[in-house]
Amino acid sequence: MAAPSEFLQYIDDKADAFIQRLADAVGIPSISGDAKRRGDVIKMAKWLNDQLTALGVETKFVDLGKQELDGQILDLPPAVLGKIGSDAAKKTVLIYGHFDVQPALKSDGWNTDPFTLVVNKEDGQLVGRGSSDDKGPILGWLNVLQYHHENKRPLPVNIKFCFEGMEESGSEGLDELVERESKPGGYFEGVDCVCISDNYWLNDRTPCLTYGLRGLTYFKVTVTGPGRDLHSGVFGRTVHEPMTDLIHLMGRLVDPTGKILVPGVDEMVPPADEEEKAIYKALDYSIADVQSAAGGEVALSSDKVEVLMGRMRNPSLSLHGIEGAFSEPGAKTVIPAKVSGKFSIRLVPPQTPEAVDPLVITYLKSEFAKLNSKNTLIIDNLHGGKPWVADHKHWNFEAAKKATRAVYKQEPDLTREGGSIPVTLTFAESLGVNVLLLPMGRGDDGAHSTNEKLDRSNFIEGSKLLGTYLYELAAIAK
Amino acid sequence: MAAPSEFLQYIDDKADAFIQRLADAVGIPSISGDAKRRGDVIKMAKWLNDQLTALGVETKFVDLGKQELDGQILDLPPAVLGKIGSDAAKKTVLIYGHFDVQPALKSDGWNTDPFTLVVNKEDGQLVGRGSSDDKGPILGWLNVLQYHHENKRPLPVNIKFCFEGMEESGSEGLDELVERESKPGGYFEGVDCVCISDNYWLNDRTPCLTYGLRGLTYFKVTVTGPGRDLHSGVFGRTVHEPMTDLIHLMGRLVDPTGKILVPGVDEMVPPADEEEKAIYKALDYSIADVQSAAGGEVALSSDKVEVLMGRMRNPSLSLHGIEGAFSEPGAKTVIPAKVSGKFSIRLVPPQTPEAVDPLVITYLKSEFAKLNSKNTLIIDNLHGGKPWVADHKHWNFEAAKKATRAVYKQEPDLTREGGSIPVTLTFAESLGVNVLLLPMGRGDDGAHSTNEKLDRSNFIEGSKLLGTYLYELAAIAK
Repeated sequence: MAAPSEFLQYIDDKADAFIQRLADAVGIPSISGDAKRRGDVIKMAKWLNDQLTALGVETKFVDLGKQELDGQILDLPPAVLGKIGSDAAKKTVLIYGHFDVQPALKSDGWNTDPFTLVVNKEDGQLVGRGSSDDKGPILGWLNVLQYHHENKRPLPVNIKFCFEGMEESGSEGLDELVERESKPGGYFEGVDCVCISDNYWLNDRTPCLTYGLRGLTYFKVTVTGPGRDLHSGVFGRTVHEPMTDLIHLMGRLVDPTGKILVPGVDEMVPPADEEEKAIYKALDYSIADVQSAAGGEVALSSDKVEVLMGRMRNPSLSLHGIEGAFSEPGAKTVIPAKVSGKFSIRLVPPQTPEAVDPLVITYLKSEFAKLNSKNTLIIDNLHGGKPWVADHKHWNFEAAKKATRAVYKQEPDLTREGGSIPVTLTFAESLGVNVLLLPMGRGDDGAHSTNEKLDRSNFIEGSKLLGTYLYELAAIAK
Repeated sequence: MAAPSEFLQYIDDKADAFIQRLADAVGIPSISGDAKRRGDVIKMAKWLNDQLTALGVETKFVDLGKQELDGQILDLPPAVLGKIGSDAAKKTVLIYGHFDVQPALKSDGWNTDPFTLVVNKEDGQLVGRGSSDDKGPILGWLNVLQYHHENKRPLPVNIKFCFEGMEESGSEGLDELVERESKPGGYFEGVDCVCISDNYWLNDRTPCLTYGLRGLTYFKVTVTGPGRDLHSGVFGRTVHEPMTDLIHLMGRLVDPTGKILVPGVDEMVPPADEEEKAIYKALDYSIADVQSAAGGEVALSSDKVEVLMGRMRNPSLSLHGIEGAFSEPGAKTVIPAKVSGKFSIRLVPPQTPEAVDPLVITYLKSEFAKLNSKNTLIIDNLHGGKPWVADHKHWNFEAAKKATRAVYKQEPDLTREGGSIPVTLTFAESLGVNVLLLPMGRGDDGAHSTNEKLDRSNFIEGSKLLGTYLYELAAIAK
């Protein structure tokens, strides 16, 4: 069942208004990882709830409890649940998205204020924090709802919504909610399949469906000893410097080729056989695409399959930075008293945080012991999530393939993704139904980066894709 | 010739007013390394000039030219020169100080606003950025001048002043000024000796005179490759990550025992013989003092002589931090595109920046080449200065020893200091006269650190010491 042409036309006609709504959403700096912005995350929850109710969705806020952040006890932002349609003859799809965003400061290297959406007429880019991750896709669903609401058309399927405001900070409180509401009598009872639009095409030209995600485990490793910051002239070569110890530890986690040096972590993953390698070889993706998206000729290998496997089916370890050291411009001659290195490991099956974390902790302790330092080591695991892989021949995926062909006149790439959306696995395990990742944005959108953008065409055609997927879902045989 | 008892009494009587003047000076955030604060450094120069002229000193500003900082072209803060007295029968002493300060943010861990002097009645501490380094000592000289000016007493010596506003940022422009004005016909013509109060006692109880300083060379090592910050999920294990490369490089500079790993740097310094070690053994200083000043039990050794030599006569390498990486609280999963590691080496004779810098640069390039990274390495030397050692049996030192005995009833420690005041060497070499370092503050003052303080007694007794030194200087045979 194709989507009505009237629907497709409506999306085109309303494009400017939809972009204005995206600007409104981007204008709320809903950074979940920053205690000072917690009010904005809650404001964003209310904004989204207002939008949904205005479009005929019956909603409710769910209190997710409290959290300790930066030494404060904070209310977690509420989840926003919604439902529209209850026709027993129709399938029921659960749609997930998140309305929080990554931190962003103009001084990070943004060309424009991160929280003012800039509509670039020349290249069609919509630039702003959250434009692609994940406010654009959420608003794609609003666009679909608006057509049906304004034109009094019934939706082809029943929809349940689950929107959260803590995705960029470990989805705190959400697992419990999903598990609880997935039980008989819960809010998600009767859901036939799940659709999540929170990742990206491999490249900038070929739509894709995603059936795998890496997991994550995020560590903060603190070294401390002196009671306060010290003058390097007065104390250099008299005390154990926390930075020296920390840099030595961080340098033993990953080598410059990307190999993880924590014993047993890389080794947990079986090597790919020739059949699996053939899948990566077939994808519409090249080293040039990787480098174009990265903005530099810095691919780890000139072998496409190796680079794609590095992203999709191998674990990775990235060093993100150091809290507490001198990070400003200029030349300060300080010995910082307490420094915390941040790093995370992306996990792939069969790795889990439960299996990997003890290896990391044991290794860090043992390497720190080798330094013979009088400083103190503190290891915190900030958050984690398991990896996930789905059946990409399920009818949920088949509906999305049909929708992609209809809107984009292209066969979608079938990908596994390097990022982590831990709740994907929670939905799959709690509901026992198929979960589809149906991305809206392109591989070069710069989620989590400076100058994050969503292409206008991806926002508009993507909204058509989401709507068309619902019609294909209604038509396909279970 | 002892100082008049009337002078000593005057300093005691005026203590509260002197502390208020220190509060005024600390209130001007004259951070030379921060382009945004350049106006405050210039404001501080004017404030100091007003104080000097009000006390009868004939002054002038000297334009030191321009500077590039954080991508801007800025006026350097002017030097403030002054002279008082021109009696050919008296000795002429040149007094140096600096009115700029290190950066400080409350968020660095200060208990109170760094730029509001807090007078702690309980322990007598005067807490604020620059209280000890170096506004307190400069104001000590003002206190001495004020006694003579108000009471219409002639100073026992002629004084010339040289105050600068770039000491914490490489003393840009000052070397040329000192060299020019030290020539015949220059402003400093006729100077018999130099006195600088810009360092600290070894401990918190024994005054000291300092006859040696370490030099410094400060590096910024940048690794860049990607065009922008990247999402670690999407790019982890596909690209050469600048942080991984930089951390590996930084980990190869110094080992956790303080040994410098750049070949040839430690080796340049001859080992101490038993006679030299005996000097360090005699100093009033213990491992407990080091650890008390550091605020933690983190001394590199339990051998006092080894720890003191690490500070006074051996080079040291400290890793200060990383610019461009994730440095905030929270858990951002970013691959930073461009990261700059900051480190500096404290130098001792016969090391010089000219001899050490090429070794560092060659080593960094060679270690980076071993990483086989496609990223780019950029090495900047931000500033440097040679080490310095003076004759501590000179009459300039003898006058200071007498003054110390008179004010503190103690024999001063004779120390070499771990910090760097590059202009010390410039004065010594340009003028060809003896330079004395006569500190006001204690070893635990926390210069360059959080909660920097000057003890009230050091400010007041230190002001007496400076004045008494001038009287002893007048009396001693050349």
